[in-house]
Amino acid sequence: MTLDLPGILEAERLAISRALSFVENSSDDDIGLLDEIFPHIGGAYRVGITGPPGAGKSTLVDQLIEILRSQDKRVGVLSVDPTSPFSGGAILGDRVRMTRHSADTGVYIRSMATRGSHGGLAIRSQDAADVLDAAGFDIILFETVGVGQVELDIAKAADTTAVILVPESGDDIQAMKAGLMEIADIFVLNKSDRQGANQAQIQVQTMLEMRPLQEHGWIPPVLKTIAPQGEGIEELSTALDSHRAMLQEHDLKHANFKQRLRLKIRSVVQHKIQEDFWTAQRESFLQESVLKAEISPSEIVKKLLGS
Amino acid sequence: MTLDLPGILEAERLAISRALSFVENSSDDDIGLLDEIFPHIGGAYRVGITGPPGAGKSTLVDQLIEILRSQDKRVGVLSVDPTSPFSGGAILGDRVRMTRHSADTGVYIRSMATRGSHGGLAIRSQDAADVLDAAGFDIILFETVGVGQVELDIAKAADTTAVILVPESGDDIQAMKAGLMEIADIFVLNKSDRQGANQAQIQVQTMLEMRPLQEHGWIPPVLKTIAPQGEGIEELSTALDSHRAMLQEHDLKHANFKQRLRLKIRSVVQHKIQEDFWTAQRESFLQESVLKAEISPSEIVKKLLGS
Repeated sequence: MTLDLPGILEAERLAISRALSFVENSSDDDIGLLDEIFPHIGGAYRVGITGPPGAGKSTLVDQLIEILRSQDKRVGVLSVDPTSPFSGGAILGDRVRMTRHSADTGVYIRSMATRGSHGGLAIRSQDAADVLDAAGFDIILFETVGVGQVELDIAKAADTTAVILVPESGDDIQAMKAGLMEIADIFVLNKSDRQGANQAQIQVQTMLEMRPLQEHGWIPPVLKTIAPQGEGIEELSTALDSHRAMLQEHDLKHANFKQRLRLKIRSVVQHKIQEDFWTAQRESFLQESVLKAEISPSEIVKKLLGS
Repeated sequence: MTLDLPGILEAERLAISRALSFVENSSDDDIGLLDEIFPHIGGAYRVGITGPPGAGKSTLVDQLIEILRSQDKRVGVLSVDPTSPFSGGAILGDRVRMTRHSADTGVYIRSMATRGSHGGLAIRSQDAADVLDAAGFDIILFETVGVGQVELDIAKAADTTAVILVPESGDDIQAMKAGLMEIADIFVLNKSDRQGANQAQIQVQTMLEMRPLQEHGWIPPVLKTIAPQGEGIEELSTALDSHRAMLQEHDLKHANFKQRLRLKIRSVVQHKIQEDFWTAQRESFLQESVLKAEISPSEIVKKLLGS
């Protein structure tokens, strides 16, 4: 493929969607795309939105898009669902949203398909965000539909991470402990018209108080929203602005950008090293040693590394 | 740690649980344990049980344990939940089960905690199964609570994989497509007293008919169960026996064992290569190049690989 860089920089939808398809299908050690768009990225603000299934993330993101559009911000949405092949809901929801926003050139929504490799997915969603970044989108929302480590990794790679919970998440909040507390810059208690909303809010706040204070002094707000009515979404938008301002004040946005680049290069290098190592000869030595079972596993390892 | 190999071989619970803790906490390139127990593994029959949340896997596994115990088989259960930190339900369920079976030395149940690395989790659950295998358990059930690629990987590494669905999974069945069809040796439609059970059964069977026939001619049965009443569990146990017999007939169980060993050694080697490569010097070159941003990402990669 030849990348249509001018088209991407002009935010032409066809050029963007082709580049994103390229990202989805490229191998893990492909750095060509990054190389070309590298001088044009770093401007977009990246927001991770994660939480358990059924927390109402899609509706919330939808409402957030409305507000961001009313502020004249161009919005890219990358919806990543590593929980496939079981759950197909996200893709369906995206189609509905795509139709709704299809006339608005200031919105670009894309579902990232899973291709087996999980490590790859976190990297790939960053590559996709780079494309949207180069295309001049002001804000990129990573919506992760699942609830595992991968989703956390994807969310973590954003500048700001919002964790969406519902009042019923009480047990989840107990179970999530450190992991979630570390990544969340903003907590959103959605469906907060339901019973137990106040208790859940207090529960999260209590856990936050037990957390050691961050260097930069940011204390994650715990916001209450009712997404279908749009309640609390303005406050979420304001909280995002505050966190972004804090990041810029401490030059952390730039540091995040450098950190993402470092991880990307590391991952490309690691992929290439593996590829170089596993020659046909070493592969067949491994195959035969395992079949013969004459030497121990650790001896096989030793011989492979020594050869 | 010194591994209490005699204790493991005697199926002493303390020796087993210590070895499993060692597995959970060991680094990805540890092959010492495998080396020691290697001559004693290969006897156990490994069954993966996977499916979406709420499919009733825990109850079903519980009933299956009863039947296997009545056949005088010793049962090991490894419950793996990569969807933490959000969902804490599995661990709770396991505690209940552990209490129930705690007096029975023929049952060993263990939850595998997540430690960040997903790739590691699939490998680690295999290591844990090796320990139970060496301890002489006849059958090892991998119960994966989540629904992502990792769970599929874990399930895939078993000799036989049962996929548990419920009548409401209709959309999931549509969405799951090839991935699930490839790994499932047995389909279980649990909660089959609910509406739509027959339709769901027909749906799965139709999809199976479109699947190319496997070399060994195995056609996955689609069983209906109602786990709390124990309905259909005998049939599931019989289906497992049939699949196991088929594997043995075609020498596939042995091939699976060799394949797992090969993947384990590969993963250890890859880990060691990475460790050797990332010297302090290369790490700081990467760090500085990214900060300075004077050369392109692909040039940084080239210099790292050339150095």
